[in-house]
Amino acid sequence: MSVDTLLYWVGMAAVAVNAVTGVLDAGRKQMDLIGALLVAVATALGGGTVRDLLLDRNVFWVVDQTYLIVAVAGGLLTFFIARTLPLPPRLFLIPDAIGLALFTVVGTQLAVQWHVPWLAASLMGVITGVVGGVLRDILCNDVPLVFLKGELYATAAWLGALLLIVLQALNVSPVASAWAAMSFIFALRLLAIRFRITLPAFRQRTED
Amino acid sequence: MSVDTLLYWVGMAAVAVNAVTGVLDAGRKQMDLIGALLVAVATALGGGTVRDLLLDRNVFWVVDQTYLIVAVAGGLLTFFIARTLPLPPRLFLIPDAIGLALFTVVGTQLAVQWHVPWLAASLMGVITGVVGGVLRDILCNDVPLVFLKGELYATAAWLGALLLIVLQALNVSPVASAWAAMSFIFALRLLAIRFRITLPAFRQRTED
Amino acid sequence: MSVDTLLYWVGMAAVAVNAVTGVLDAGRKQMDLIGALLVAVATALGGGTVRDLLLDRNVFWVVDQTYLIVAVAGGLLTFFIARTLPLPPRLFLIPDAIGLALFTVVGTQLAVQWHVPWLAASLMGVITGVVGGVLRDILCNDVPLVFLKGELYATAAWLGALLLIVLQALNVSPVASAWAAMSFIFALRLLAIRFRITLPAFRQRTED
Repeated sequence: MSVDTLLYWVGMAAVAVNAVTGVLDAGRKQMDLIGALLVAVATALGGGTVRDLLLDRNVFWVVDQTYLIVAVAGGLLTFFIARTLPLPPRLFLIPDAIGLALFTVVGTQLAVQWHVPWLAASLMGVITGVVGGVLRDILCNDVPLVFLKGELYATAAWLGALLLIVLQALNVSPVASAWAAMSFIFALRLLAIRFRITLPAFRQRTED
Repeated sequence: MSVDTLLYWVGMAAVAVNAVTGVLDAGRKQMDLIGALLVAVATALGGGTVRDLLLDRNVFWVVDQTYLIVAVAGGLLTFFIARTLPLPPRLFLIPDAIGLALFTVVGTQLAVQWHVPWLAASLMGVITGVVGGVLRDILCNDVPLVFLKGELYATAAWLGALLLIVLQALNVSPVASAWAAMSFIFALRLLAIRFRITLPAFRQRTED
Repeated sequence: MSVDTLLYWVGMAAVAVNAVTGVLDAGRKQMDLIGALLVAVATALGGGTVRDLLLDRNVFWVVDQTYLIVAVAGGLLTFFIARTLPLPPRLFLIPDAIGLALFTVVGTQLAVQWHVPWLAASLMGVITGVVGGVLRDILCNDVPLVFLKGELYATAAWLGALLLIVLQALNVSPVASAWAAMSFIFALRLLAIRFRITLPAFRQRTED
């Protein structure tokens, strides 16, 4: 299997996983079947869509609607499975971390090929990785989880995107640097959850 | 009157109605005149704008600002009329259902002509029909109404968009299939309100 | 210093100020360093980004990532300074009003040069001026401040954008009309804060 084929299928898996988390969240807000499905679609496709708009590319799921079909099917299955099987959210932490790693690396790589300058390219990776989850939380009227203390969610994405760019600047091969960045994001996110690693939170000194 | 002329004017009416619902909602949040007007504009033009961005078309109200003028005028009138006349929200259920039907069908039709594949084209219709209301609810910091149980709002839009695509695939004429899809969306939405038809809501089995 | 050079540097200053207000707001929501930085970036670059997407221009911070570097640096500095020095939000009212004036005028001017019709061009100015703040409030799950009674925020932007367009239609030179519109927005915003000028708020008559 070529690397492109591999990335394509892992990308599809990431879309499906994001759709699952979208439905599970929407369910807590008394949405009906179609409402939950639309939140799932926005979660699964939102990040890549914003990236494509910013890069002025054709939107990926308009060009190849297989992504959309996978998102809808993933959401639909979850909707019905969750009625008979308990699906505790922590079941999805590992596939979700894989999705974050993959989306971020694909987004960064694409921006680099599009000749976007390095810091902007790393932000494209972060956008691809986290905007879906941000949209999900906004549509469900929550403060976006990805920004909160104690998750290292956006943090893992941004550091991984920068790592990818540094490795490629050092002439590491595209494939090797992609694997290194994906592993880094995946590991940092899971270590953060397991060992409760946190970044400093904002703390404002008030006038006495 | 040609079909294009008819659609143009009904489209304008839908823009005006959406602007009205935007102002009425914004009013409940202590917004001032211009704040409420901007929410009205976002409600009236948001769906078509996102559709045009996704299809990489010129944004419709930038090309023909009559839409924008109608949205501003509709919002302004409502702002002042609501001070002297009671405008109960249920007054707007019927024009709102007409707007949903029209926006959805126009959006789907446009995407089909743009050679967007079928499922993605139906989603463009849904986006055109509901994103305005979603923006309104996000700007007012509510959970978007269109996704909630018991409204069949997004549901009517999605089923109607799929109906339009099926009819055209069966070689029904564009005009006849447009009328059928619009009537379907309008009727389903009003029947859902009248008879409290609901789709299954998400219900998660928890571990015992 | 040429006018273009002046506008470029004042634009950078406005980006930095917006990043500061983004971090200060995000801080109240228990976001960590990277989360707060991303909110700062969205606040600083959001308005111009939406304007560029609507006009189908290349997104400004993708073309020249200096804007992005300034936003990140501004957010980072604020994050650490706020831990040792009290930074009361009213410290930022004057630079924020400058930012609003500048972003609005730059956005309107750009739209006029892009041959956007007048009312749509004024809305582009408003979007450039206020969308960053709206994004900040949505990401922090608040009702957007810019729409609320008693701020005259969006109001100052819209009236200033219209003033710019009227002056140019009257053949006032571009530079003079830009200064007039910026001064107007800046003054109206500060006078509104100082003297609590308000527009009429929405008030709905209810059925007796």
